[in-house]
Amino acid sequence: MMTQSQHINLSMPDWVQSELERLPSAIPDINERMRTVIRFSRINVEQNTGGPFAAGVFEKKSGKIISIGVNRVIDNLCTSAHAEVMALSLAQQKLDRWDLGGQDQPVYQLVVNWRPCIMCYGATIWSGIRSLAIAGAGPELESITGFDEGPLPKQWREELESRGIEVIDNVLTSEAIVVYEMYRDAGRLVYNSRQGDRS
Amino acid sequence: MMTQSQHINLSMPDWVQSELERLPSAIPDINERMRTVIRFSRINVEQNTGGPFAAGVFEKKSGKIISIGVNRVIDNLCTSAHAEVMALSLAQQKLDRWDLGGQDQPVYQLVVNWRPCIMCYGATIWSGIRSLAIAGAGPELESITGFDEGPLPKQWREELESRGIEVIDNVLTSEAIVVYEMYRDAGRLVYNSRQGDRS
Repeated sequence: MMTQSQHINLSMPDWVQSELERLPSAIPDINERMRTVIRFSRINVEQNTGGPFAAGVFEKKSGKIISIGVNRVIDNLCTSAHAEVMALSLAQQKLDRWDLGGQDQPVYQLVVNWRPCIMCYGATIWSGIRSLAIAGAGPELESITGFDEGPLPKQWREELESRGIEVIDNVLTSEAIVVYEMYRDAGRLVYNSRQGDRS
Repeated sequence: MMTQSQHINLSMPDWVQSELERLPSAIPDINERMRTVIRFSRINVEQNTGGPFAAGVFEKKSGKIISIGVNRVIDNLCTSAHAEVMALSLAQQKLDRWDLGGQDQPVYQLVVNWRPCIMCYGATIWSGIRSLAIAGAGPELESITGFDEGPLPKQWREELESRGIEVIDNVLTSEAIVVYEMYRDAGRLVYNSRQGDRS
């Protein structure tokens, strides 16, 4: 007889609650939104609670903060617990709706400290989010950290735009990179799977 | 002050437990593995507990069943709760490890009732799974149901193989398609996001 748990529980680190309490309810400026996300990515490295990634869902116009997620792959034993999946899922749960792109609601923006990996690229599309702001999309993340980000389609920006998702690139690029260098210098785990042959 | 829950809870439908109890501990034949997965996809439609998708993680050699997942997007208010993400996350939790491709463990296989969407394609890569068996990879799923499966890279099979993941295609294709036709004929929700403009 085959048995399994019927529940999956993903959790944020303990330090997040007090960090959230220091935030205002809204961050109108896009640079400040990214700076906040990068700060969460940095603390996630400093506290050794996950990979060097964070993401936030905001109301695009007002900057109201809906959710903040950080990478939780190792601690949650779940390779889908990337920052974007955490932030989007927390936002959907908080707003009590699976579609963040519905007509009767504000435009929501996902702010991430780099271009999403192939999985989170898809998660972004399915979430209904209408705007994606990233710190960069170049090879720096992979070359500095060693993470494999997967094979995005060549026309990845056009594919987002054809689905009504705008892309805002190069927001605080160098500040984001500092955290990747910190992760590398700390010798932290690069948890690409497959027998550890890329770690 | 900004607050959010620090937990995300994903759950399988109530009917799953009794269905799992009817299964043997191992299913050696690949066709029978797929038939089991397709049966879970069909019950998910009949019970109206999610989209027409299911996935299972098996030990490839013995057929030992590790986990079965079904699509839970609507009920869990989570657009990342696709069948593959559920099955892979349940397997990682059950095996108490985030890497299903580690050297000191058996080869694990993900069996799904169609080619993964762009998000689950990435989730498959990151999980460490070593084998992917699918019922089909053609346009039938999208054309019958109306679901957008996203822009996979053209060389998606080669990209998997270059990461040590074999692809076994066309397992019980026509049996899988019957469930998509059932979903269409039942008039169930096609929950691609973005203001319902594709539903």
